[in-house]
Amino acid sequence: MRGVSIIGVGITPFGVREESLVALGAIACRNALEDAGLAPEQIEAFFLGNFAGQAFVGQNHIAPMVAHATGLGAVPCTRLEGACASGGLAMRQGVLAVASGQVDFALIAGVEKMTSAETDETASILAAAGDVAVEASVGSTFPALFGLIARRHMHEHGTTREEIAHVAVKNHAHGKLNPNAHMQKDVTLPQVMDARPVADPLGLFDCSLISDGAAAVVLCPAETASAHHEKPVEVLASAQASDSPALSDKRDITTFYATQKAGEEAFSQAGLSREDVDLAEIHDCFTMAEIIALEDLGFFARGEGGRGAVEGMTKLGGAMPVNTSGGLKSKGHPVGATGVAQIHELTLQLRGEAGARQVPGAEVGLAHNLGGSGATCAVHILGATA
Amino acid sequence: MRGVSIIGVGITPFGVREESLVALGAIACRNALEDAGLAPEQIEAFFLGNFAGQAFVGQNHIAPMVAHATGLGAVPCTRLEGACASGGLAMRQGVLAVASGQVDFALIAGVEKMTSAETDETASILAAAGDVAVEASVGSTFPALFGLIARRHMHEHGTTREEIAHVAVKNHAHGKLNPNAHMQKDVTLPQVMDARPVADPLGLFDCSLISDGAAAVVLCPAETASAHHEKPVEVLASAQASDSPALSDKRDITTFYATQKAGEEAFSQAGLSREDVDLAEIHDCFTMAEIIALEDLGFFARGEGGRGAVEGMTKLGGAMPVNTSGGLKSKGHPVGATGVAQIHELTLQLRGEAGARQVPGAEVGLAHNLGGSGATCAVHILGATA
Repeated sequence: MRGVSIIGVGITPFGVREESLVALGAIACRNALEDAGLAPEQIEAFFLGNFAGQAFVGQNHIAPMVAHATGLGAVPCTRLEGACASGGLAMRQGVLAVASGQVDFALIAGVEKMTSAETDETASILAAAGDVAVEASVGSTFPALFGLIARRHMHEHGTTREEIAHVAVKNHAHGKLNPNAHMQKDVTLPQVMDARPVADPLGLFDCSLISDGAAAVVLCPAETASAHHEKPVEVLASAQASDSPALSDKRDITTFYATQKAGEEAFSQAGLSREDVDLAEIHDCFTMAEIIALEDLGFFARGEGGRGAVEGMTKLGGAMPVNTSGGLKSKGHPVGATGVAQIHELTLQLRGEAGARQVPGAEVGLAHNLGGSGATCAVHILGATA
Repeated sequence: MRGVSIIGVGITPFGVREESLVALGAIACRNALEDAGLAPEQIEAFFLGNFAGQAFVGQNHIAPMVAHATGLGAVPCTRLEGACASGGLAMRQGVLAVASGQVDFALIAGVEKMTSAETDETASILAAAGDVAVEASVGSTFPALFGLIARRHMHEHGTTREEIAHVAVKNHAHGKLNPNAHMQKDVTLPQVMDARPVADPLGLFDCSLISDGAAAVVLCPAETASAHHEKPVEVLASAQASDSPALSDKRDITTFYATQKAGEEAFSQAGLSREDVDLAEIHDCFTMAEIIALEDLGFFARGEGGRGAVEGMTKLGGAMPVNTSGGLKSKGHPVGATGVAQIHELTLQLRGEAGARQVPGAEVGLAHNLGGSGATCAVHILGATA
C-alpha cells in the first residue's frame, strides 16, 4: 500500500459551545479543507468519529449531515464508533482508503456535543461504552472503573497518589498554552490532591472534561502531498486492537492489552523504536490512564510510568513531552473528536506551528486513543517531512 | 486491489428474540465462522453494523463486545453506523480491508435488538436517522416521510396505490418460504389496501417490521477462496454514496440520488449491465421504497417501477426476483443487521442453497441498502463461482 500524508487540519475551540453537533463538525471540516487548499467537491470519501450523537443531542446518522453542511459531494460518508476511540478509528479507515488507492483525497472528522445533556444523563451515556450488563447496571460509572484501576496499580506497582496527581498538573500547564483548550489554567499539586473526591483515589482534577468540539484532517497520497501543503506530515503507522470490554474479564486491570498490541504493531509498521518518538498525545481520560498508556506503549517499564510527569520527562522541555495540547484533562474530551484532535496537535507540532507549546525540532509524534476501559485502542505515528 | 470472496454466512431467525444484542451478534458470527470452516482466532479484522444499540438497549461500543462473545482475538473491531445502511457500510469496509491486502480473513456482522423498546420510543429512535432539526422535531416520523414520498411519486409519475400494495403481497409470499423470516405468512391485496392507515397513502402492511436479529459474513481473497468453501461467492462490486439527509434539501423526492450514484458505480466496478442481474435484495423499508430503488438502479424507467410486482417480473419465477428473502417487509428489519442479511440471502441463492425460494441458475445478485430517507446508500454485486 502507498504512503499517506496529512495536508490539512482543522479544529474548533473545545468547551461549552453554542453550535449544534452538525455545525461543529462542519466548522472543523471547512478549516481543514482551507488548510489543505482543497474545495469540498475534491473530497472523495468522508469518515466521521462520533460516540453518542443520538444519546447526547438526539441525532444519529450524522456523517452525511456533517458532509452536507460542509458542502461535500455525494461521496461515501461513514460514521465510526469505538467509544472514546471513535476518532482514532475514523482516522484509521481514512488512512486505509487512501493507502489502498481507493481514493486520493479523504476527509476525517471527529465531533461530540456533550454539554447540553444533564450531568446524570452524561454519566450514564458514557457508561454505555463499558459492558453495561456487568458494570453500569450495578452502578459502575467510568470514574469508578478507573478508580479501581488506579487503586490496583498503586497496590501492585507502588504508584503513588502524588505521581498520579502530577499528570493533572502537567497537562493543565500544557493546556494553558493552547488557545483551543477548554480549561486554559494551571492547577497546583495541592489543588489536585485535595480536590473533591470522584472515585477513590481519583478526585475532580483527575478526570477529563465534558466538552463540545470537533477536529478534522485531510489526507492524500504521500507522493503528491507536497503539491498541496508546504509541510505535509506523513502517516508512518496506523494500528488498532481490541480487548475484552469488562474489567472482570481482564487478566490484569493495571494494563490494557489493546494498547500494548496496537502500540507494538504501530512501531513495527513505522520501523521505529520508542526513542525515536519526540512527543505523544496520550489518552488521559483519567490521569491514571496516561501513566498506564506510557507503560503499555513501552515508554516506561511497568510501575515506572508515574515518573514521567514527576521527573519531567513528559513535560514540555522534557525528553518526550506528552499531551502538549493539554490532553483530555485540560484541552477537553468531546469524545468522538478526541482521536482526531490528537492528530491535529501532532500535525501542528511536526510542522513547527504549535506556538508557545512547540516542541523544538519535533520529527516523530505518536497518538494513542483508547475506547472504554481498554476495549478499543488506535495508535498512529506521524512523521515530519524531512 | 485484489478480488474478495464470501466463504461463510450466518444468521439468526428474525423476530422477537430473547437473546441480548451482543448474544444475537455472536450467534450469527459463530454460524458464519462454522460455515467458513474457520476458528475465531483466524479472523484478522471485524466490522459490525449497528444503528442504535445505545438507544434501544443502553449498550454502545458493541463491536469489541460481540467480538469477545464470539471468541475473536485482539483484532481491530470497528462499528459502522449509517442508519438503516449500517450493515452495508460494514460490508464495504470489510471488503476494502481484504481487497487492499490489509487482512486475509475479515468477519462482518450486523445486529439490532429493537423489540424490547416501547413503540413510541422506537419511532423516535428511528426518526434520529433523519435530519431531526427540520423533520423529527416537527413530528415527521419515517412513515410520514415515506408517505410524502409515495404520494409525490403517485402525483408525478402516475404510480397507483395498487402497484405499491403489490410489493407487500409479493414480499410476504417470498418471506413465507424463508424459515428465518419474522412474518412467514401471505397477505392479500385487499388486506394491504384496507389495512389500518399509518401515513397516507401507506398502511400497516406497507411498513417494514420492527425486529431483533443478526447476520454475518466471512470474507477472504478470491484467489484462495476455493480452499475454504466449495462454493465461494465473489464480491464483484462494493459501492457507497450519500445525499442530503432532509427531504426539504432534495431536488426531487421521488428519487434517491445516493442510490443512483452507488448503483452506477457498482455496475461500473462489476462491468455488468442491468440485464446480467438474476436477483436483487432491495431496501423495502416501505413498499414504495422498493419501487423507487428499482427505478434508481436502472431496472425500470422512472414511473415504471410499480409494474415489477404487478406484472410479476420481480416475483419468484419472474425475470429478476426481488427480495426472495421476504425483504424488510416480511423477513423483518433489525436495522443494523439488514444490509448484512441481504448479503446472506444472495450468498445462499448464488450457492443454490435457498431451498423453496431458490432462483434457478442464479449467477449474479445485487444488494441495495438505504439509510435514512436516502442520505446513505450501499450497493453490492455478488457473483456465483463459475
